[in-house]
Amino acid sequence: MTRRQLKLGAFMRPISIHTGAWRYPGAVPDANFNFPFIKRMIQKLEAGKFDAFFMADHLAVLNMPVEALKRSHTVTSFEPFTLLSALAAVTDNIGLVATGSTTFDAPYHVARRFASLDHISGGRAGWNIVTTSNPDAALNFGLDDHMEHAERYKRAREFYDVVTGLWDSFADDAFVRDVESGIFMDPEKMHVLDHDGAYLKVRGPLNIARPVQGWPVIVQAGASEDGKQLAAETAEAVFTGGGPIADAQKLYADIKGRMAKIGRNPDHLKILPGAFVVVGDSVEEAKEKRALLDSKVHYANAIASLSINLGTDASQFNPDAPLPDDIPDTNASKSGRERVIALARRENLTVRQLAQRLGGYAGSAFVGTPQTIADQMQEWLETEASDGFNIMFPYLPEGLDDFVERVVPELQRRGIFRTAYEGRTLRENLGLPRPENRFFRG
Amino acid sequence: MTRRQLKLGAFMRPISIHTGAWRYPGAVPDANFNFPFIKRMIQKLEAGKFDAFFMADHLAVLNMPVEALKRSHTVTSFEPFTLLSALAAVTDNIGLVATGSTTFDAPYHVARRFASLDHISGGRAGWNIVTTSNPDAALNFGLDDHMEHAERYKRAREFYDVVTGLWDSFADDAFVRDVESGIFMDPEKMHVLDHDGAYLKVRGPLNIARPVQGWPVIVQAGASEDGKQLAAETAEAVFTGGGPIADAQKLYADIKGRMAKIGRNPDHLKILPGAFVVVGDSVEEAKEKRALLDSKVHYANAIASLSINLGTDASQFNPDAPLPDDIPDTNASKSGRERVIALARRENLTVRQLAQRLGGYAGSAFVGTPQTIADQMQEWLETEASDGFNIMFPYLPEGLDDFVERVVPELQRRGIFRTAYEGRTLRENLGLPRPENRFFRG
Repeated sequence: MTRRQLKLGAFMRPISIHTGAWRYPGAVPDANFNFPFIKRMIQKLEAGKFDAFFMADHLAVLNMPVEALKRSHTVTSFEPFTLLSALAAVTDNIGLVATGSTTFDAPYHVARRFASLDHISGGRAGWNIVTTSNPDAALNFGLDDHMEHAERYKRAREFYDVVTGLWDSFADDAFVRDVESGIFMDPEKMHVLDHDGAYLKVRGPLNIARPVQGWPVIVQAGASEDGKQLAAETAEAVFTGGGPIADAQKLYADIKGRMAKIGRNPDHLKILPGAFVVVGDSVEEAKEKRALLDSKVHYANAIASLSINLGTDASQFNPDAPLPDDIPDTNASKSGRERVIALARRENLTVRQLAQRLGGYAGSAFVGTPQTIADQMQEWLETEASDGFNIMFPYLPEGLDDFVERVVPELQRRGIFRTAYEGRTLRENLGLPRPENRFFRG
Repeated sequence: MTRRQLKLGAFMRPISIHTGAWRYPGAVPDANFNFPFIKRMIQKLEAGKFDAFFMADHLAVLNMPVEALKRSHTVTSFEPFTLLSALAAVTDNIGLVATGSTTFDAPYHVARRFASLDHISGGRAGWNIVTTSNPDAALNFGLDDHMEHAERYKRAREFYDVVTGLWDSFADDAFVRDVESGIFMDPEKMHVLDHDGAYLKVRGPLNIARPVQGWPVIVQAGASEDGKQLAAETAEAVFTGGGPIADAQKLYADIKGRMAKIGRNPDHLKILPGAFVVVGDSVEEAKEKRALLDSKVHYANAIASLSINLGTDASQFNPDAPLPDDIPDTNASKSGRERVIALARRENLTVRQLAQRLGGYAGSAFVGTPQTIADQMQEWLETEASDGFNIMFPYLPEGLDDFVERVVPELQRRGIFRTAYEGRTLRENLGLPRPENRFFRG
């Protein structure tokens, strides 16, 4: 029996998810609009046998105060479909996952673009279904009021049904192209969806052949009860937040349990926590790199993040002293507050360092040598905390090169990561079945 | 002074605009979803120094009876943005023109995708503004009633204002990326559009830097009074229907006259009639090729086209005899009817041949040798009937290869077509100025 293996996605922003990364030594500050640079990054990830390249997305600029905005590299960049399509033309195997909003787009457009990306890439597309909770985005689409959470999820579920229904507009063998008789398409193998639901009305058929993968891979990231249920019912990969391994194991069991309950094979959904990975020659050096990176976050932004997390004005504290013991209780999230205080104590951080950690990237991180990182990843895999990871690189290109050149070989040596792609499509590499056409069963 | 030169666009469908082309000898019937084939076509056009590659688009399948649909290769293919972005990654100079509907899409999405394509391609994007008159498309977007013509044009004009306003969200030098000070973007150089008009409400700013070209090139194709006026006010290239040279000269003078009236430089809009070009060693051979191509149109579809054009059931006529003289008057368009009758008499066509011409492609055509075709094109250019052409290839790959290998060198020999690209962007090659940013004047 072959050993259970990690699935690896790259959770990308052109500069990095870390807000200070554009100032890190060796960074490429103009990467947001530098296609050749992003092309080099994805080709490196493909050389490292990554399953997928995911480009995070936003639909607004004004989602932060102008003082933070002017220091931010994260709000302006390529639109994901145009970018991933261009990258499809310069890669052969890596999956291409884009975000498609169920709140601010039409299902006909979404179905069509993902199907098209799947055809262009030879079966490598994935759809990250997001309900877009950003009220600043709503204003860019003529909406003053943002839809309520539960309603957004109901609409998302209907949207998913419509999009997948449109993908099934044609049987896989509908296009006969018989030059002799002049029959190009068999109309018996075309289905008119005629959807008329609570939120959406769409006739169909989609003006595109069924995707190479049947359907592009369905990805989700919602962590709410609604989000977990939608994932269990529909998703094939889930991006989770990471967090302590015990929490991850609980979430893993929760989602896979929901799947079993509704009769889905739990192997047909891959749980991929985000993992911010900093590689050094020693654990100490990796920590120093992370500290240097965090120090690049501007103090004004950093202290604003800390103040929000603590629910109190942190600018009153001495930046170069430890966090005071007597932080007043507030009505900010208690668990979030306690997590921040525990972090400061555990890593012995000054107020400045703590603030800069929170202002940079404060999620789950693996900071160490290729060996210690592989140890942790292996533990997560073997204790059912995850099926792999969605890797965030702290800075580019160095952080990505480090991972591909140093961590990947260590994972391969242990037999927990592929040395060659298993198949040609994202589905085949992730070990997911090709969906049947609901209107034309084989 | 250099001689006035032709601008050449390629008006593409993966198989051809001609409905019988997929059955022509040497055709590639699966081209609709064959990215490597389309890549070869665009690279050949780039070798031929074409200005632009335009992929025609539809938003519906059910725009014809099922009897025609099952023989049609024209309704299912790649979505243009995903396709053109992928093609951007494998080309260096040729322009990439996509259709963006002002009726069925949101201006924030449209602005963003064109800006992104412009950045990815290094300044080669063009936006073909269409108001989408297809009522079948409306049903795919939850709309039962289609917007009236005049209202569609008012909305289109507002849509254009919003999209170009969003492109101007940032000054060209807004992104300072000063690593030392930590200032990434100068907020004084960011404009919040806050548009609130009759049809659209959009806050902005766009989450993308100003396009390389300032704005992607604005393209239009409307031939109505509203369409011509919108073109004169906003367009930089216009795709026209062709027709007799005298009509083209009239239209040319009309549009350029409207421009002068509102103070626009008439050179800043290129009029490009569609031209279906069939190349042979002799005029006779070219005509035979066209006849062979037309013969590939199924007779049932062909006779339906002829019946519509004549306003009478043409299936009663003897297919292999000339068109009868006594065709009854009807309330079908009289000028269209007379044009069809004149065509049959002029080319001495049987009912079958006439029907197949109309069912295949009945627009303006240049059918001859490289010399006769170049003669005609030169005449159009020199008599102000056009600034160039939007070439339609009768069948692929042969028709495209013929044009690039045989007609282009003849045009170059005469000094009326470039031998090297003038610039790096589509604007530079078309000789169009870079628009000023309306909010940040240089």
